[in-house]
Amino acid sequence: MGVDLAADLEASIDRGAGRRHSLTRQIAGAIRQRVQTGTLGLGERLPAVRALASALDVTPETVANAYRHLTTEGYLRGEVGRGTYVSAPPLRAEDDPLAPFGTALAAKSSQEGHGGGSGARSGWERDLLRLAMGADLVSFAASVAAAELAPIEAVRDAFARALEEEGADALQAGPTEGLPSLRQAIATRLLPQRGVRAAASQVCITSGSQQGIDLAAKVFVAPGDTVLVEQPSFLGALEAFRARGARLVGVPVDSQGIRVDLLASYAAQHRPRLLYCMPTYQNPTGYSLATERRAQVLRMAADLDLLVVEDDSAGFFHLEDAEAPPALAADDQSGRVILLGTFSKLVAAGVRLGWLVAANPVLGRLVAAKYASDLTTDALSQRAYARLVADGVIERHLQVARAAYRERRDAMLDALQTPGALPEGTTWTRPRGGFNVWIELPAEAPAVSDLYFAAIRRGVSFVPGAFFHADGTGAMAQGGRSLRLCYAGVPPEAIRRGVRLLGEALRATPGSMSRPRPAVY
Amino acid sequence: MGVDLAADLEASIDRGAGRRHSLTRQIAGAIRQRVQTGTLGLGERLPAVRALASALDVTPETVANAYRHLTTEGYLRGEVGRGTYVSAPPLRAEDDPLAPFGTALAAKSSQEGHGGGSGARSGWERDLLRLAMGADLVSFAASVAAAELAPIEAVRDAFARALEEEGADALQAGPTEGLPSLRQAIATRLLPQRGVRAAASQVCITSGSQQGIDLAAKVFVAPGDTVLVEQPSFLGALEAFRARGARLVGVPVDSQGIRVDLLASYAAQHRPRLLYCMPTYQNPTGYSLATERRAQVLRMAADLDLLVVEDDSAGFFHLEDAEAPPALAADDQSGRVILLGTFSKLVAAGVRLGWLVAANPVLGRLVAAKYASDLTTDALSQRAYARLVADGVIERHLQVARAAYRERRDAMLDALQTPGALPEGTTWTRPRGGFNVWIELPAEAPAVSDLYFAAIRRGVSFVPGAFFHADGTGAMAQGGRSLRLCYAGVPPEAIRRGVRLLGEALRATPGSMSRPRPAVY
Repeated sequence: MGVDLAADLEASIDRGAGRRHSLTRQIAGAIRQRVQTGTLGLGERLPAVRALASALDVTPETVANAYRHLTTEGYLRGEVGRGTYVSAPPLRAEDDPLAPFGTALAAKSSQEGHGGGSGARSGWERDLLRLAMGADLVSFAASVAAAELAPIEAVRDAFARALEEEGADALQAGPTEGLPSLRQAIATRLLPQRGVRAAASQVCITSGSQQGIDLAAKVFVAPGDTVLVEQPSFLGALEAFRARGARLVGVPVDSQGIRVDLLASYAAQHRPRLLYCMPTYQNPTGYSLATERRAQVLRMAADLDLLVVEDDSAGFFHLEDAEAPPALAADDQSGRVILLGTFSKLVAAGVRLGWLVAANPVLGRLVAAKYASDLTTDALSQRAYARLVADGVIERHLQVARAAYRERRDAMLDALQTPGALPEGTTWTRPRGGFNVWIELPAEAPAVSDLYFAAIRRGVSFVPGAFFHADGTGAMAQGGRSLRLCYAGVPPEAIRRGVRLLGEALRATPGSMSRPRPAVY
Repeated sequence: MGVDLAADLEASIDRGAGRRHSLTRQIAGAIRQRVQTGTLGLGERLPAVRALASALDVTPETVANAYRHLTTEGYLRGEVGRGTYVSAPPLRAEDDPLAPFGTALAAKSSQEGHGGGSGARSGWERDLLRLAMGADLVSFAASVAAAELAPIEAVRDAFARALEEEGADALQAGPTEGLPSLRQAIATRLLPQRGVRAAASQVCITSGSQQGIDLAAKVFVAPGDTVLVEQPSFLGALEAFRARGARLVGVPVDSQGIRVDLLASYAAQHRPRLLYCMPTYQNPTGYSLATERRAQVLRMAADLDLLVVEDDSAGFFHLEDAEAPPALAADDQSGRVILLGTFSKLVAAGVRLGWLVAANPVLGRLVAAKYASDLTTDALSQRAYARLVADGVIERHLQVARAAYRERRDAMLDALQTPGALPEGTTWTRPRGGFNVWIELPAEAPAVSDLYFAAIRRGVSFVPGAFFHADGTGAMAQGGRSLRLCYAGVPPEAIRRGVRLLGEALRATPGSMSRPRPAVY
């Protein structure tokens, strides 16, 4: 195992990566990832510090520090005189906090590994699973629209009418770019709500905004290229760029959105191909990019010849303001912004229908990549949603959804600020739109990796903040004390219960201050 | 322009590519592609032979031979004392023979180019467009199912019942792998028809088989890796592997399927990562892989540690035999075959719902790639098609479709063998299943590039054989005299008319023997 792990880690390590990616961080990140994915199974013994250091040709301190970080995080455990062991189970399909999309992560893990970590489940693991699948679990995990609010009857009628009125044509494949009537409906009815004036010919229909991200990665990112992302950022985007072999560099976000003051120096240092961002009601923080920063981002994109993928999937969900800030794309003069939107956020997560808007020549290349990816998007769904947009059903639904999300957001903020609900020193965002609240726990709170399992056992789930970090290792520093709670999919009463359970889990989990120092090294 | 073209070509040329990819072929291929895509516009002047040779650091003969090939093919035209000019228009969105998916190709072209070739349309071009879009065009171009046979009412009921009975759940996103009931329905009802015993857990739902190809490319092919494909092969697959930066190597197909006798030496020479093939009723030839060759392919895959992507999208369409040959995956002991199937062929091309079947650990990695690509497949469509499979609607429809395709294939074969319909020496395949007939014209027939436009003008379309070749340059030799006719989507009467019009176009187009030799160089 020791030799295998060393060889495996060796392949993960970039010795030229510089100070922000120190070898300690890289080694810790690589081991953490192997624990999370089950390549290193619960209870498995790690190589001795000196052995691993020698195999990797680094100093023993480097390895010892990596082990120490991971012990502090709860991934490893040192036993005096016996060595260092994995002390956290892998994330499995059923535990996965990213439900409903989540099984992929676990599948990935169990497959990419070498068999480690797959074995009989312990009693408490089964307990976890039962709870995680139980109907009474309050899931703050998935950042999704509230499907129960969807205009089900109108959707049924739209599908039925498309088939009745268009017959076999409704099942015929159209152009890769999408059905002209749907592109037109989006251009004339939805985009103006985001301040965007675009011709139907600039719209390409996608299988949700995730595909838009994937297409941008395919066309504009070569393996090894740098992509700038917000820190924290949307996991699906990180995965798409990682799958392309990109090097992700996170630019911190504050309450005014991405730190534009850092963007130029990051760009100079890393020479990125592309910036992925959510300027409006960002996932996971809920923050929006301030108006003056928007102009700066656009100017910088033009100056640096940087493409900007603007994920606007939350842009229709202004809960506070009369309208949301216009999309970045609204003021794009240089044709460098690729705007993404999706019915999966407008209606329900299972509606895999979205759009991208781009200027030529960018659009044409994305369309060609879509052809190679899946030829075209489902014809019947496009016809049904073209009708739903044209008939105003989607706009009426948005009003209903916004009212519900406003109530849910308020319920969550109320619950969070109830005295004693959360430990002293906990902070959270107060989103003016979108789906999520981002929580930062104080330094003495439990590690989120511990809290996560304790919370699931009590009946509430969330996504650990580390999942939203470009740099898994850097995530330790920031993401290790943060978590994302999605309110949009949870009714107010369940929100109150969920926050209460979360508070209980926090109080019941030993804080990092009370954790014993590792005994070995 | 000359300098630009040289720099552009330099980037396309692989000087270490060996004899099969001679510099002449590479240069010709790169220029042809630029003409087809409009980067080199109709009427544009090419650099002088010596200037280009010097810029590319090759001998003048190399460039002169490339120009000569392209002149023979009709892409270039030499004028005495005046130089060499582009003599073919680019393929445009509306001309694209690959309708209904085709606009991507044209979009790609017009975007990747530098503006050359986009201009006002000439009279005959407008004429072409009008014809190509006219309702009376007989399209043998798209290899698609006959949508007009689709069980529209059953489809409408399945969507309506899913929404009525499951409510909002029908729009909720499920796991990346797909809806359990659809995976189960495919495993128990469809796969046994292909001789495949697979658990539902081995099935992953995709957005059509094109996505299965794309996922395999993403996971198992790094840029520069070699992928073996049949020669000729499915264009969508070639595009997916090209988009990934793969080096495609075509292995010839004969009436018994892929030339297994060559496979081992190609594999030894090119060290491929993956073989993409359609062993049953291959697109475009209609040939199936002989039983003994199937065993050899499987043995070779195991010996060479080669993954095999088996595109089985025509496998349900046996038109001659009581049943189709079982899928290659049926006898795969080593877990190296990834089986792909799709409702877009079972029902209609706009139904972007397919499946892949693979053993672990391959499956898990494909699922993870799907997560990064589009998270999951449309929920409502999955629920509706799970019902359609479980209720036996799909199986009953397959019987209807097979009967219709048999009649259409027979109509096409009858029309082709009508005395005088096609030039003496023309040969074609007699497919025992699937969607297409592959035609080889005799050496003295017109170049297919000329024939293509003549045929469209007369009211019949097809796809030139060169589109199905891994090596665009090698395509000249084989694909330059071949074409694919799809019968499945065309009613018998229209088939007879289409073949008649094709014969007229052949007779009206000057043959290559009558083409004057190029006057320059």
